[in-house]
Amino acid sequence: MKHIIVPATSANMGSGFDSIGIAFQKYNHLWFVEMESGAEILVNRKHDLKIPVDKTNLIYKTMANFFKMVGKPMPGVRLIQEDYIPHTRGLGSSAACIVAGLMAANDLSGCHYSREKLAQIAAKIEGHPDNSNPAILGGMVVGALDDKEMRHVKIDIPEYLSFAIMVPDFPLETSKSRGILPYTVLRKDAIFNSSRAALLVASMITGNIDNLKMAMDDRLHQPYRMSLVPGMTDIFEAADKFGAKGSYLSGAGPTLVSVITDDMADEFAIKMNTYLSSIPNEWHLEILKPDLEGARIVEG
Amino acid sequence: MKHIIVPATSANMGSGFDSIGIAFQKYNHLWFVEMESGAEILVNRKHDLKIPVDKTNLIYKTMANFFKMVGKPMPGVRLIQEDYIPHTRGLGSSAACIVAGLMAANDLSGCHYSREKLAQIAAKIEGHPDNSNPAILGGMVVGALDDKEMRHVKIDIPEYLSFAIMVPDFPLETSKSRGILPYTVLRKDAIFNSSRAALLVASMITGNIDNLKMAMDDRLHQPYRMSLVPGMTDIFEAADKFGAKGSYLSGAGPTLVSVITDDMADEFAIKMNTYLSSIPNEWHLEILKPDLEGARIVEG
Repeated sequence: MKHIIVPATSANMGSGFDSIGIAFQKYNHLWFVEMESGAEILVNRKHDLKIPVDKTNLIYKTMANFFKMVGKPMPGVRLIQEDYIPHTRGLGSSAACIVAGLMAANDLSGCHYSREKLAQIAAKIEGHPDNSNPAILGGMVVGALDDKEMRHVKIDIPEYLSFAIMVPDFPLETSKSRGILPYTVLRKDAIFNSSRAALLVASMITGNIDNLKMAMDDRLHQPYRMSLVPGMTDIFEAADKFGAKGSYLSGAGPTLVSVITDDMADEFAIKMNTYLSSIPNEWHLEILKPDLEGARIVEG
Repeated sequence: MKHIIVPATSANMGSGFDSIGIAFQKYNHLWFVEMESGAEILVNRKHDLKIPVDKTNLIYKTMANFFKMVGKPMPGVRLIQEDYIPHTRGLGSSAACIVAGLMAANDLSGCHYSREKLAQIAAKIEGHPDNSNPAILGGMVVGALDDKEMRHVKIDIPEYLSFAIMVPDFPLETSKSRGILPYTVLRKDAIFNSSRAALLVASMITGNIDNLKMAMDDRLHQPYRMSLVPGMTDIFEAADKFGAKGSYLSGAGPTLVSVITDDMADEFAIKMNTYLSSIPNEWHLEILKPDLEGARIVEG
């Protein structure tokens, strides 16, 4: 069997709504092999997640759609799915399944499309490229999408940065988290965000990390989603007090991310864990480094 | 007399409304010297511009405010102002006067504030940093402003880029060009701009200049200002046809800017001049390189 890993991704990064995302060293795994016919889907580590093992499985569906798109018959497949990216937490688990399906189908079909081509396809499927781009390309990626194409740039992240991922015990459906957003916004809030998104990119590339707090500030989605993520504002304030360079709601939430430097990671973890244990809901903290390679077929 | 030059600046660059700006090698000049008392203001190259030569002169006023701010008495001054940046055309002529005044006052007062400090002061005066930052710092600058401070990053511009500046014979008051903008915008248009502004910065820094057309696209101000700048859409289309990498309305307009590569500059100029002479209004085309140093005191 061939083995694909796809990194967790964190979209928006505050001001870069539907545009900027980053991949972390936390992976979903997919083993796949062609069979005569049919679909045999095994899910490891299923826990309480309701991952379908029939043809409604997201990885399988993505593969079937890929074969349809390229005009080839879908072969029988055996899939083993092993997820470590938590579901409905804003860490790109759906995008990871879509990317895993695309990469497996790309391999089985003999199409051998480039990563660039797969990134175009994934962005169209998702409707926004901020999870799929980093999932496929790795690192931090800025993307924009119009009716015709997706344009993107993978940018440098200072090597000494780590990301404190704070995952709560409650889920948040993306549809609910999108549904709460208003149809119109103040022009000044739109200007607020475009200036911050631009500053975020410039500051990350040049290593001006003291700008990140201002650069990750947002008025297009986080203020509305605050009510869906109890503790968000308090945790951001605590992170700031504990030395975080910036904090944001990951994707549609409810996971929160703080940007920290490697040399303060241990101290931040201790302080933040103490704080998280003092507030309602269970929060799980993990310090992650960026994944710089993106989804890939690995040995074994 | 001491001699200051301040570059013309072009704000917004399409998607980076009130945030991103660039300086060009086209300058206003100010000569200044302290006198016993009073204000003697001479304006060279006055043409039909109504530049006041009394204490309502913008450079003088800025100097007087600077001295007030630092708590020192304003000395008598002799000023000679020589403007090459056209007025009310969206090329930062007001910002250039403010910056010239700040630099002259900074020198005469003995304060010797850093450029960084002057950039903070100028951004507060202007209310947005996208002209004052490049005027003071040179190059292309991304800035964001909150109640407390302005944060900015000067970013690299590919060396082989030039900027075709197309200045019409009609003025456009900034207040009129701002007044036409709506109070609210669609959320999707806000997302459109923040993704483009982020892409603009990432593409410019990494030299992905084929992204610039998408990255400079805007839905927050240009569509509304189109009616105030007859010919704008047609000129953008012509520029695209003649090989421009991207085009935008400079600041509040009416000047238009196209980004081109050095090796196509001559051909672009010939084709665009032919085109401009075929449409209503007089348009003056000039190909400029970025100024990378910003305002400075020069010899003589």
